[in-house]
Amino acid sequence: MKIISENKAFGGVQGVYSHASEACACEMTFAVYMPPQAENGPVPVLWYLSGLTCTHENAMTKAGLQAHAAEFGIAIVLPDTSPRGESVANDDAYDLGQGAGFYVNATQAPWSPNFQMETYVASELRDLVTEKFAVSVHHGITGHSMGGHGAMTLAMKYPGHYQSLSAFAPIANPTQSDWGRKQLGAYLGSAEESWSANDASLLLKERGWSGDILIDQGADDQFYDLLKPESLVTALVETKTAHSYRLQKGYDHSYYFVSTFARDHVAWHAERLKG
Amino acid sequence: MKIISENKAFGGVQGVYSHASEACACEMTFAVYMPPQAENGPVPVLWYLSGLTCTHENAMTKAGLQAHAAEFGIAIVLPDTSPRGESVANDDAYDLGQGAGFYVNATQAPWSPNFQMETYVASELRDLVTEKFAVSVHHGITGHSMGGHGAMTLAMKYPGHYQSLSAFAPIANPTQSDWGRKQLGAYLGSAEESWSANDASLLLKERGWSGDILIDQGADDQFYDLLKPESLVTALVETKTAHSYRLQKGYDHSYYFVSTFARDHVAWHAERLKG
Repeated sequence: MKIISENKAFGGVQGVYSHASEACACEMTFAVYMPPQAENGPVPVLWYLSGLTCTHENAMTKAGLQAHAAEFGIAIVLPDTSPRGESVANDDAYDLGQGAGFYVNATQAPWSPNFQMETYVASELRDLVTEKFAVSVHHGITGHSMGGHGAMTLAMKYPGHYQSLSAFAPIANPTQSDWGRKQLGAYLGSAEESWSANDASLLLKERGWSGDILIDQGADDQFYDLLKPESLVTALVETKTAHSYRLQKGYDHSYYFVSTFARDHVAWHAERLKG
Repeated sequence: MKIISENKAFGGVQGVYSHASEACACEMTFAVYMPPQAENGPVPVLWYLSGLTCTHENAMTKAGLQAHAAEFGIAIVLPDTSPRGESVANDDAYDLGQGAGFYVNATQAPWSPNFQMETYVASELRDLVTEKFAVSVHHGITGHSMGGHGAMTLAMKYPGHYQSLSAFAPIANPTQSDWGRKQLGAYLGSAEESWSANDASLLLKERGWSGDILIDQGADDQFYDLLKPESLVTALVETKTAHSYRLQKGYDHSYYFVSTFARDHVAWHAERLKG
């Protein structure tokens, strides 16, 4: 693991690191914020998965998570959203290929050699972070848009890996949206049966989630129709999954929305991870 | 005045606007955050001046000021750091020309037709903001690096314009630094007598500041030698100016440093502007 940068922030350290990923078969960059409390021993850790076009950097600089992580004494891990590099497959569209890994394991050419983001986040990077940083066994997961969807699907697919879950404006029902059908078709192939295990609304009905979920959604989100929030709300109610769903008046899809409610989410996870 | 964008944030509105500037003879862009309290009437306003290479956008997205502005009920104005455009003089160096206006009024070619940032910030944009936004007559000023210096010099040059003052890692003594001599020479000419009215440490001894000043400086600032903080500390002590100077262990010159102490600065201004 290489250190790209480390900056003191809110009494802790905001670091950016890279490592040779086996799952993605390329060098991967990620960010970790360690709060000051980590000096006294392992702290719980919150995974934040970012959305389409993002790297580890967007939320690191714009979401304002560090102040809250320092307040509540939890670490934050920010993975990249896809494998990257000249030898990695890509597409000219912003919503496919590099920057758009969708947190799934691709089975189709040309994506499958590198686009193994599910395994990368849920296993490989998890092991690396656990080995290299003073984090406890208490992990939570959240994310924004494509990353909110990834947080929900990984939490449900890997029972026991994550003890707390939330999402900011998640893609909610990708098998029924242009934000999903295109990517699942490319990465997993045209057989739609393989898609349902990577759709949060369908997965909730199939596998469920043992804990509760906090979801914030902007009522003025410019991508509201693509996110399909109504499918998730229906699934939450049908499955009687404990949750807090907040439709926030006037907020859009931007980091201004994320940063406004970031403290609530960190507090939500801290309560469940430290309780 | 044109609206470039408006996003709801922390219950208020983060806006970006542009207008035809008379002082700078070009279109100028600036950002304003209006807190939710502004719905009930005019609120105090804090001016934040950014550093070399920045636009209005860097602090808007990275400094985390909105949360604190909403908490304390004050507006934030973020001007650009220079005139911009193809018809505006520039230099290949990052520290001269566009992005490096130094908050002075240039007297020399090719800069003088556009580089009138002192007049722009202290008068023209002040008048525009007062006219267009629900802000009160209570104005404070702060800034980072070149902007921290601009905050101090404008506060001292325009008595009565600003009732509160602070700075993050300000350039402190530009007449004695490579961050200053180059720019003051270009914008004001080689006669160094004209420089002293644009040097915060010299101006403090000459004109003084009637209020108190909060200054945060990172002890591990990578530009420490260029900032010349010791000159300012000496001037503050010699002039018996009321101040709080905090050398912060482990912090560098980045926005991680600024965001860590941003709440303290907003609170400092709020106490003086609302008291």
